[in-house]
Amino acid sequence: MLHLHSESTKRWLHQVDNHLDELLLDHAHCERKAASTAMNLMNAYTENLDICEEMARIVEEELEHFFMVVEILKKRGIPFRRIAPGPYGRNLTGLIRQNHPDRAVDRMLVASLIEARSCERFRLLAEHVKEREPELSEFYAGLFESEARHHTTYVRLAEHFVDRETVRQRLAELSKLESEIIAEGSDMPRMHS
Amino acid sequence: MLHLHSESTKRWLHQVDNHLDELLLDHAHCERKAASTAMNLMNAYTENLDICEEMARIVEEELEHFFMVVEILKKRGIPFRRIAPGPYGRNLTGLIRQNHPDRAVDRMLVASLIEARSCERFRLLAEHVKEREPELSEFYAGLFESEARHHTTYVRLAEHFVDRETVRQRLAELSKLESEIIAEGSDMPRMHS
Ligand SMILES: [Fe+2]
Ligand SMILES: [Fe+2]
Ligand SMILES: [Fe+2]
Ligand SMILES: [Fe+2]
Repeated sequence: MLHLHSESTKRWLHQVDNHLDELLLDHAHCERKAASTAMNLMNAYTENLDICEEMARIVEEELEHFFMVVEILKKRGIPFRRIAPGPYGRNLTGLIRQNHPDRAVDRMLVASLIEARSCERFRLLAEHVKEREPELSEFYAGLFESEARHHTTYVRLAEHFVDRETVRQRLAELSKLESEIIAEGSDMPRMHS
Repeated sequence: MLHLHSESTKRWLHQVDNHLDELLLDHAHCERKAASTAMNLMNAYTENLDICEEMARIVEEELEHFFMVVEILKKRGIPFRRIAPGPYGRNLTGLIRQNHPDRAVDRMLVASLIEARSCERFRLLAEHVKEREPELSEFYAGLFESEARHHTTYVRLAEHFVDRETVRQRLAELSKLESEIIAEGSDMPRMHS
């Protein structure tokens, strides 16, 4: 359903295990960036009302998630700050082709894969911290459904630009590349390290 | 309260009078652009939680306004489309100085002035179309309060970067320039023509 080519490994869980504070901070910024990506797509394809409406809804939901993470940060006394992003997002957006309609398709599909990976990792994390951090576990589990829905929306919107079969093929290609990028990881403990 | 240097003239009301459809379309895009501006400021000053939270709230409210205008467009059978923007926004953002903290202050204050002008014009419009278009009139009147609040928020946030007196002086300067830009108008019937 999520079109991911690989599952996240224990490596990541062990990496973030001892850095939940930093992970939460990164998570807040991930929600902000997810909102920002949707806003950019709304601006870029603003002649299309379906895209505008779906993007506006996603912006609103991501900002709701942002506020939820910020509440958790406050509760735990973790000071909000800017943190350096890992290479995942940059590497993925580097795969976007430049000419229309390829660019539009790729922007939608890259967004769809980031949503899918977040979704997969929220579920893993919910399971992983269940005993130690029941409240956090519930929070992560609650995000699963909406990120899965976002994934599906982005894939559907790519079909505004090329036919379904072309979308399916390109998604398979990008998903394979995404699995290589996520496997590389990063020294910084992040949602997508 | 809105810090505007001039009041909108009858010229504008007469211009948009016979182009309410196009004005509504432009209005939808204005709400989208207002959301986008707030999103950009959230990204730019993301180390500051107060700014992030206020910007996220404004993004959400502007997108709610966007959906409201889209409903009106649908009800009236006005097809949603991309339209050319007038020169107002471009001319105003051209006033933004480049070095920190001037740039941050100017971005906040330019946003505050656009909100103020929208606010002023919604009130004028609400009065002007009251007889002919009671439903539209009520809608415009309902936006007045939140745009006034947005204006105040942006002015307050500028004080994160320089002291209150410096903000006050720069706001007076920019407001004077804004009144010249709005007086120029545009051939296209727009919210800020
Ligand atoms: Fe989210
Ligand atoms: Fe999402
Ligand atoms: Fe608005
Ligand atoms: Fe506003």
